[in-house]
Amino acid sequence: MSEFRLIIGNKHLSSWSLRAWLMIKRCKVKFSEIIVDLERQDVKAAILQLSPSGKVPALKHNDLLIWDSLSIGEYLAEVSPSAKLWPTDEAARAIARSVSNEMHSGFATLRKMMPFALFVQKDLPYSEELQGEIKRIEEIWLDCRSKFGQDGEFLFGDFSIADAMFAPVVLRFQTYGYKSDNRAVVDYCNAILAHPDLLEWLNSAKNN
Amino acid sequence: MSEFRLIIGNKHLSSWSLRAWLMIKRCKVKFSEIIVDLERQDVKAAILQLSPSGKVPALKHNDLLIWDSLSIGEYLAEVSPSAKLWPTDEAARAIARSVSNEMHSGFATLRKMMPFALFVQKDLPYSEELQGEIKRIEEIWLDCRSKFGQDGEFLFGDFSIADAMFAPVVLRFQTYGYKSDNRAVVDYCNAILAHPDLLEWLNSAKNN
Repeated sequence: MSEFRLIIGNKHLSSWSLRAWLMIKRCKVKFSEIIVDLERQDVKAAILQLSPSGKVPALKHNDLLIWDSLSIGEYLAEVSPSAKLWPTDEAARAIARSVSNEMHSGFATLRKMMPFALFVQKDLPYSEELQGEIKRIEEIWLDCRSKFGQDGEFLFGDFSIADAMFAPVVLRFQTYGYKSDNRAVVDYCNAILAHPDLLEWLNSAKNN
Repeated sequence: MSEFRLIIGNKHLSSWSLRAWLMIKRCKVKFSEIIVDLERQDVKAAILQLSPSGKVPALKHNDLLIWDSLSIGEYLAEVSPSAKLWPTDEAARAIARSVSNEMHSGFATLRKMMPFALFVQKDLPYSEELQGEIKRIEEIWLDCRSKFGQDGEFLFGDFSIADAMFAPVVLRFQTYGYKSDNRAVVDYCNAILAHPDLLEWLNSAKNN
């Protein structure tokens, strides 16, 4: 029997946990959640009990522990091919991985200036650097939507790992009151915000 | 006819370029190099002419442009399965991706305090944070070597994407005179430093 356990942080605080959670939800497998309170003092030690990198998320599948959001996505894409976590077209898949990895290793200013926080409203100064990163993110979204997304509402049509990677950015835009003046960007944000899995996460985070 | 072009930075400066270059070398395909001088003033604009993220490396395969070192690795693993860029065993592959992604998004202190620079010798203070990151890297290497690497000299036996991801760390250790007191760590570093592809990169960097 196959058992999945997802190790995550507080749902209103951990953007990387949300990414992995959205990925596994697409697989329609039963999984349990182990939630580590990221605000406890000994948080690093607490996570190290569960995962060797000392960070969330991590996924336990039977005896195998996989860590890091993107590795979890790649693993789930392999064991749940029917979920189509990556686009089936080879070129689309290569671009989906490129934008997912760009998010994975980049956008340091956005991540620093717009920390993930649900259910609050905050203002912030938009430095030139932050504006540049937001512009790049919108460019990615518009480019994927126009080239690969015509058959659906998401970056590559159906919801994929790439959307899971960018969903926390959409939520950050909400928290910090950022509104794009590009209609296609707004439409994409609305599609993410209306996604049933995302709504389930928000609901669960609210009741945490 | 299949044409590969790898867009990289100066070979003595760009650790991410080295990673992608080591990956494509394993594929035994012919490829040309487009080298962008990272020290020119308009470097971002120059790279943007070639790749939308404004960063190196990027890979052009015929008309398809893929960017980011790990996306390049995933793409090459798909189009060159005989190169076995990832371990063939599913569990080993999941761990190889976990450690590769941990390197991809992490070790910020090491990357800041030990900037990649070939052919120089530098001293540096070892802060507690840097020591913690070095300890974690050694733990990764020892863990992979003992669990998956028995049939070869590298993290998962044969040279894989995971080794390409950590090769620049081995070179940083050399630049900054860091020597591990663990014999298995030293052996692994020596295996990386003796790898013919790495030697070819160093030789080419020297003559740049």
